[in-house]
Amino acid sequence: MALVLRHRTQGHYGPNSNVSPPHGSRLVSSINRQVRLAARPSGLPRATDWELTSEEVPVPGPGQFTVAVSHLSVDPAMRGWMNATASYIPPVEIGAVMRAGGIGPVTASEHPDFAVGDHVYGTFGVQEHALSDGRGVLKLDTALAPLPTYLGALGMTGLTAYFALLETGKAREGDTVVVSGAAGAVGSVAGQIAKIKGCRVIGIAGGPDKCRVVVEEFGFDACIDYREGSVRKALRELAPGGVDVYFDNVGGEILDDVLVCLARGARVVICGAISQYNEAAVRGPANYMMLLVARASMTGMLVFDYADRYGEALAEMAGWYAEGRLVSREQVIHGAVADFPSVLLMLFEGANTGKLILALDSE
Amino acid sequence: MALVLRHRTQGHYGPNSNVSPPHGSRLVSSINRQVRLAARPSGLPRATDWELTSEEVPVPGPGQFTVAVSHLSVDPAMRGWMNATASYIPPVEIGAVMRAGGIGPVTASEHPDFAVGDHVYGTFGVQEHALSDGRGVLKLDTALAPLPTYLGALGMTGLTAYFALLETGKAREGDTVVVSGAAGAVGSVAGQIAKIKGCRVIGIAGGPDKCRVVVEEFGFDACIDYREGSVRKALRELAPGGVDVYFDNVGGEILDDVLVCLARGARVVICGAISQYNEAAVRGPANYMMLLVARASMTGMLVFDYADRYGEALAEMAGWYAEGRLVSREQVIHGAVADFPSVLLMLFEGANTGKLILALDSE
Repeated sequence: MALVLRHRTQGHYGPNSNVSPPHGSRLVSSINRQVRLAARPSGLPRATDWELTSEEVPVPGPGQFTVAVSHLSVDPAMRGWMNATASYIPPVEIGAVMRAGGIGPVTASEHPDFAVGDHVYGTFGVQEHALSDGRGVLKLDTALAPLPTYLGALGMTGLTAYFALLETGKAREGDTVVVSGAAGAVGSVAGQIAKIKGCRVIGIAGGPDKCRVVVEEFGFDACIDYREGSVRKALRELAPGGVDVYFDNVGGEILDDVLVCLARGARVVICGAISQYNEAAVRGPANYMMLLVARASMTGMLVFDYADRYGEALAEMAGWYAEGRLVSREQVIHGAVADFPSVLLMLFEGANTGKLILALDSE
Repeated sequence: MALVLRHRTQGHYGPNSNVSPPHGSRLVSSINRQVRLAARPSGLPRATDWELTSEEVPVPGPGQFTVAVSHLSVDPAMRGWMNATASYIPPVEIGAVMRAGGIGPVTASEHPDFAVGDHVYGTFGVQEHALSDGRGVLKLDTALAPLPTYLGALGMTGLTAYFALLETGKAREGDTVVVSGAAGAVGSVAGQIAKIKGCRVIGIAGGPDKCRVVVEEFGFDACIDYREGSVRKALRELAPGGVDVYFDNVGGEILDDVLVCLARGARVVICGAISQYNEAAVRGPANYMMLLVARASMTGMLVFDYADRYGEALAEMAGWYAEGRLVSREQVIHGAVADFPSVLLMLFEGANTGKLILALDSE
């Protein structure tokens, strides 16, 4: 992504700064506000780890187009991208625009496949305007679902749930499936797909409100409130025959609790570990030897490996969505790119239900 | 197992006992000395966790036979069997003869399939004489290999290595395979099978002597001495393309070191965790999220699940053994059943190379 005429109009907006985030001060025509990574956080990201910058809106060259980002995907994995350590994707460099999936309309195009007015998804970053060459960009059918749903059940979130559950977890009819982070973006979709596929589905979530949504809105058979008593004990009651598939989004103590409740041949899918992302020392699963006792497996997955099957999966999920069998719940926070740092923290406070999205409101 | 006329001639032989273990005092004709579990250990088993008892040698009834145990298998897994917690096999009850695999000749038989003089393998327990109904008992071909080898490469040890490596680990030609506990019973066989199958094999063992044996006797391509510097650093040098199969017998820090060196799609086989068996709090693998980064799996295995394929595997391994391609190394300690507690501790001190066996010497 080429950035033109970069000039910074904002410094850090840390606790000692008297610069306030420019809520709703977006000028669509010429200024592109961006959130950049200023420092590598230790623990929860702080205001001083970010920098707000402004540039002129880029102008597309041949084979390029620009997008006015309308919605940003806010994901737990972002915390990992902020670390220096190599992972499945390179770290966000210090000084770079923070990596983020986003959607919005094409506003100018010199690209044969993308026309002004097309709505697209791409890794556009935490900024108001993005320049793209079309690689990794998907066109969206705005007639089928509202735009935010393409960051939720019909986006990377839904695709992650789909492949993690069905390919990595090999969930099959009759299986008992447990999903942690059940009220979250990926977990809520994973549980619904498991129900559609004929599994018995138990969610784990934090607090009675989330548990209610998990059962009533997402249709799980039951939901364990991990803040109320022992997850292990509750699982022993709810899944006396053991857990066939554990879809883990959280890690930590809950992972250890589920490990002692596995059925023979169980599959543990490692999709995320939100409880550990801000910890200096990760808590490894002390009960991992239960994998031996249960002859079970624990497998990591990344949705990107299934890129050549996105179309097939989205077609199936769009069908379920159209039939009303798959609910996409998004929690949309309206604001400006400058609000991104505080919206990100909502994830780690467990403040969201469903997919957390920052909608960039034009004035 | 029916035990007749049980009378105890020995109490605990703890530090305050003046009863010394009856070395070499075995009377084949009438007395059956046994080691029983007296208490559940916390940490390393102590002398007071055991009880030495004597009974009359059992007399077989219809469909039964007796075995004079000549060699006892001494295994890390025994430590787990001493705990109260349910596992893949019920705990050894307090007061019961300690569970152990053993071999020896049939000494009396009322069973149509077992004749006096047959050499057999079975879970005969830590005692001089065992009564059996033949279930789970294998007849041994003493012409093919010396008896102790049937507790090593051509016994449950070898079968564990075979199925863990080839089925659970799916090791294939060209793979880079890492084996911890490489000088141990299962590890030494696993690495040799991997070599036979065309893999590049790196062992991890404790101390220069063991590492020498691993390379020179067992034919591994390299061996890392975990007591000398960083396993992680050594692995990065020896396996720059990453580890395709990690055959783990030890757990702990070494498991964490290997997890950061996995190749894409790697298989981690959880066969044992000897570093953790005596720990009050197990150290879980803090780097388990590398399973996600590498799209790797960690899978537990138990050899018992492959019982219907033992014959096929043993035939293949016996062929390799006869051709001199598979070396079975046993460390045979000569003594009495009363020596079992101290021989068991050798495992946790890392004192053995190859399969640790207690040979019960008759006078």
